[in-house]
Amino acid sequence: MSLRQKTYNLLEKDLSRSLANKLLGSFIIVLIVANVIAVILESHQAFGQQYAYGFYAFNVFSVVIFTIEYLARVWVCVEAPGADASQPIKTRLRYMFSAVALVDFLAIAPFYLTFFINIDLRYLRMLRMLRLLKLTHYFKGLDMFVCVLRKELPTIGAAIFTVMVLVVMSASIMYAIEHQAQPEVFGSIPSAMWWAVVTMTTVGYGDVVPVTVFGKFIAMFIMLLGVGIVALPAAMLAAKFGDELRLRKQQLEAEVDNALSDGYVSKSERADLDQLAEQLDLSRDDLEQLIKNRTLVLGTSITCPHCKKAIKLSRHSAAE
Amino acid sequence: MSLRQKTYNLLEKDLSRSLANKLLGSFIIVLIVANVIAVILESHQAFGQQYAYGFYAFNVFSVVIFTIEYLARVWVCVEAPGADASQPIKTRLRYMFSAVALVDFLAIAPFYLTFFINIDLRYLRMLRMLRLLKLTHYFKGLDMFVCVLRKELPTIGAAIFTVMVLVVMSASIMYAIEHQAQPEVFGSIPSAMWWAVVTMTTVGYGDVVPVTVFGKFIAMFIMLLGVGIVALPAAMLAAKFGDELRLRKQQLEAEVDNALSDGYVSKSERADLDQLAEQLDLSRDDLEQLIKNRTLVLGTSITCPHCKKAIKLSRHSAAE
Amino acid sequence: MSLRQKTYNLLEKDLSRSLANKLLGSFIIVLIVANVIAVILESHQAFGQQYAYGFYAFNVFSVVIFTIEYLARVWVCVEAPGADASQPIKTRLRYMFSAVALVDFLAIAPFYLTFFINIDLRYLRMLRMLRLLKLTHYFKGLDMFVCVLRKELPTIGAAIFTVMVLVVMSASIMYAIEHQAQPEVFGSIPSAMWWAVVTMTTVGYGDVVPVTVFGKFIAMFIMLLGVGIVALPAAMLAAKFGDELRLRKQQLEAEVDNALSDGYVSKSERADLDQLAEQLDLSRDDLEQLIKNRTLVLGTSITCPHCKKAIKLSRHSAAE
Amino acid sequence: MSLRQKTYNLLEKDLSRSLANKLLGSFIIVLIVANVIAVILESHQAFGQQYAYGFYAFNVFSVVIFTIEYLARVWVCVEAPGADASQPIKTRLRYMFSAVALVDFLAIAPFYLTFFINIDLRYLRMLRMLRLLKLTHYFKGLDMFVCVLRKELPTIGAAIFTVMVLVVMSASIMYAIEHQAQPEVFGSIPSAMWWAVVTMTTVGYGDVVPVTVFGKFIAMFIMLLGVGIVALPAAMLAAKFGDELRLRKQQLEAEVDNALSDGYVSKSERADLDQLAEQLDLSRDDLEQLIKNRTLVLGTSITCPHCKKAIKLSRHSAAE
Repeated sequence: MSLRQKTYNLLEKDLSRSLANKLLGSFIIVLIVANVIAVILESHQAFGQQYAYGFYAFNVFSVVIFTIEYLARVWVCVEAPGADASQPIKTRLRYMFSAVALVDFLAIAPFYLTFFINIDLRYLRMLRMLRLLKLTHYFKGLDMFVCVLRKELPTIGAAIFTVMVLVVMSASIMYAIEHQAQPEVFGSIPSAMWWAVVTMTTVGYGDVVPVTVFGKFIAMFIMLLGVGIVALPAAMLAAKFGDELRLRKQQLEAEVDNALSDGYVSKSERADLDQLAEQLDLSRDDLEQLIKNRTLVLGTSITCPHCKKAIKLSRHSAAE
Repeated sequence: MSLRQKTYNLLEKDLSRSLANKLLGSFIIVLIVANVIAVILESHQAFGQQYAYGFYAFNVFSVVIFTIEYLARVWVCVEAPGADASQPIKTRLRYMFSAVALVDFLAIAPFYLTFFINIDLRYLRMLRMLRLLKLTHYFKGLDMFVCVLRKELPTIGAAIFTVMVLVVMSASIMYAIEHQAQPEVFGSIPSAMWWAVVTMTTVGYGDVVPVTVFGKFIAMFIMLLGVGIVALPAAMLAAKFGDELRLRKQQLEAEVDNALSDGYVSKSERADLDQLAEQLDLSRDDLEQLIKNRTLVLGTSITCPHCKKAIKLSRHSAAE
Repeated sequence: MSLRQKTYNLLEKDLSRSLANKLLGSFIIVLIVANVIAVILESHQAFGQQYAYGFYAFNVFSVVIFTIEYLARVWVCVEAPGADASQPIKTRLRYMFSAVALVDFLAIAPFYLTFFINIDLRYLRMLRMLRLLKLTHYFKGLDMFVCVLRKELPTIGAAIFTVMVLVVMSASIMYAIEHQAQPEVFGSIPSAMWWAVVTMTTVGYGDVVPVTVFGKFIAMFIMLLGVGIVALPAAMLAAKFGDELRLRKQQLEAEVDNALSDGYVSKSERADLDQLAEQLDLSRDDLEQLIKNRTLVLGTSITCPHCKKAIKLSRHSAAE
Repeated sequence: MSLRQKTYNLLEKDLSRSLANKLLGSFIIVLIVANVIAVILESHQAFGQQYAYGFYAFNVFSVVIFTIEYLARVWVCVEAPGADASQPIKTRLRYMFSAVALVDFLAIAPFYLTFFINIDLRYLRMLRMLRLLKLTHYFKGLDMFVCVLRKELPTIGAAIFTVMVLVVMSASIMYAIEHQAQPEVFGSIPSAMWWAVVTMTTVGYGDVVPVTVFGKFIAMFIMLLGVGIVALPAAMLAAKFGDELRLRKQQLEAEVDNALSDGYVSKSERADLDQLAEQLDLSRDDLEQLIKNRTLVLGTSITCPHCKKAIKLSRHSAAE
């Protein structure tokens, strides 16, 4: 096995495989979290100045590690199962523009940029926070989240469009009503939009509040309506998660039925089902339950059309 | 093809057809959004006065375009599939009172009204915001939204009635308790209703807050109860969306089963299913998944333990 | 038909029957709403004093009508289908302690009480608001609402218990932390509970806010946790509505299958299904859809065990 | 029956069994609630000092009872069905480290600790509040709650991770934007995190509000996004409850089908179903409904169009 292949296995193979791979993954996760904590602590002026040197050293150390990690990932990406190893440069360039690689690049780029451009310290801190996104490498649960989000974009889009129309309309109305009474806070429609968003998301800071009787009357309607409309996208998304889960369970159920067609689940069938369950982000418990349920449902007798005898589609039918 | 027919195809045919139709649609969408942005910017006093002439010119230009669009739509509406072309005037009048045509009319009417009546500039702005509603022409996702809303009006109505009763009751109670301590903010039941709505929608500006011990005690109950009740309509609506989706999937499933009754989905069957899926606002992916699932369930083969022959558990297996 | 029977039909029969029944029902609904509006308007001091006489006259008029209605309902209650007409006094007493009769009684009792006891005007207003509850007589949609609520009391109870524990725990913790820094607002655990409820329901007036660093840190956890926990009961209730609806649809589906067992839905079967659908608060559309779906699913072939020939369970099988 | 066995039955048997067991359970529940109320009342300085002696006496009394209860529970735990009675010390030690026993221990430990260490009175009160957790002994509904929570930890974890990332990112951005304008409230990223959490949970105290135009613009986006993301975990959890319920109903349905395979539910089958329903936290009503539905689906009879004989579409119909 070449060094490149070994590095690939070390870096990219799933966390649950070798010990070295696990250790490296854990180390990088800890380093990312430590970086985020360091940025948060450093932003506290007194604390940040006192340990300025330490923070700088830790930042340089992190950037060095992340840079090595980034370069290694670019180097070994040609070893990936689907990659075209015969055109290494093209493959690597394509990898460099993938989402995961860009996140890794953004985690180190601002540091090197400071040698050429003078970035305000506070904005630099904000950019260093992007290192947090590197964690998505290790978070498998996000897949289904993103999958549902992409699938439901049109429906969610319609809800967001409705929210937008409501915000703009509410702001225009309240601007027209309250402008005279409070010219300093309802001075223009954009100012009124601040009120509209703060109100309809139910944040309600209280820095901008209608004072006229008519303004309060209309605001009450906007609140009652707004609460419902703004809460809809989240509620719908949650419902779609339920739907997605059900769809995946149906998929697994179909395969379980397939495996049960000979009356029982063999070892190799079970391995396939386990793999599919993992792929679909379903738990081992769900699979167990499903097999039990389907076996019972299948415990039905039918007549063989060839010999006209009864067949019991039970768990042990194949062994009879 | 007559000019009227050509204009109809240009204006009313679905966005995804001809290039000219697409371009015109995109142009009108951009113009609507630009109008809304213009109204928002113009409301900023200093900015609005500086570019007053530009804003006015853009408004006149938009009104001209929208007027031409409106007149063209009224002119060509007799070409619509279900329209009665033999009675053009009656057909056009009916179209002019449809929801879509009224929205188009409201987008231009205020401008012409200003020649006759003196409308306050702020209210005029509010009316120009109605142009935003023209976007509903191009937003297909809203259909299911409105469909569910209309279907569930009775249930939603009961929830809104409960909210209303709760608001009025809470306001009366808090008015009775807090009137003495804070006569200026809990001076009458309508004032207390402002508190009740601000509290039960969880906006909580903090401009009106109970100060007596008993008032705070009752307010805590109202909050805990109110949060649940006010959030119900949105949550129920979201649940109904899920239900509607499931119903539609069941409909599609039934047709898929029908198409699969001969063991496979033919090309013409597939075209029908595609059309039905589009009609039901279901994605191509959902259909694909459904066909796969149903095929597996129906296409299972087992071995008869008596005669050792294969049996295909399909729809007509019993008839073989 | 006796006068008592006629009065019963006039008062208690469903709104959708006779014209006189409809008119009386509408009149009482209008009177209830007018009463609520009158109480709200009268609470405005200046307005209330100016028209004091008118408001008083309207109140007396309403009480007279509601008293006549109440007495009539008590008089005719023995005509109800399930009532025991042989023991009129016992039947009437039992009716008088039913929920609907108590609401009617509470709507008029405070007025008569004022002749004997001196009730503060503000509390009297609050009591007159109870007339609003008389509307539940006419609101059919609330049935399913109450039915689900009663069914899910244990689950909802567990959620409310969790909320209570969280409120008491959060209040104790914040009292311990913030007591020293803000003795006037975090002076005791009950005071801290006001903060806890205002925060966890996300109302957030801002009248009580932690100021110490540790207090803010703990408050952040309480907020993030509290938002989830407090929103749970409403979300769960909404989910149960979905479940209830599904259960009812399953019930209807079973009956549809039963009706379809001979291949088609006869007129009398259809009438039964319509009645069941109405009883289950399901729409005509849902029923239509269900019949269509089930017919397709049943379009399967099975073998008759007697003559071994294939039977197609289609819509027209009975006519073949 | 030995004394230890009797004590076990008195303490640990289900509430619904013997009268003595019920009375003891009720007494302990009342004592726990009384303790919590006492701690709340005592925290009110004037009130607490006036009745200081009474509160102290009640506390000592409660601790004595709870200590006896704790020791008794440890003593009798070897009588539990699954416990190893041959190794009493090991069994008791294992019990002492179980969740329920630790909660019982925490309810009394602080009192005894005060003899050795000097704990601040306010923190002591907080610790006494832990007695509230003893109620979990008697609250059966929480089981399903915890079961769902544990099952869905990965999904909920992904949602919480997203919330965390959003909070940290929003805080960094707002710190960068608002630091100059409001150095006292946006002085460091931790301070900005207070704003981010208060805003994204929609609590919105209003103690920290962006004032710059750009800050308000970004805050509007954060609010609209945050409302959706923060509400997701609760909505998802509620959806999972629905899913869990459905899964359990499917499980019960499978057993009902099994019981119905001979055409009817026998008494012993019914007892098994009742037990399973209770075990799955499903109501008697649900079971009743399920049996009715499944009987209808399976018990349908049709007429064979060829030989005009009745066919019962039951599980073994094909085998008849």
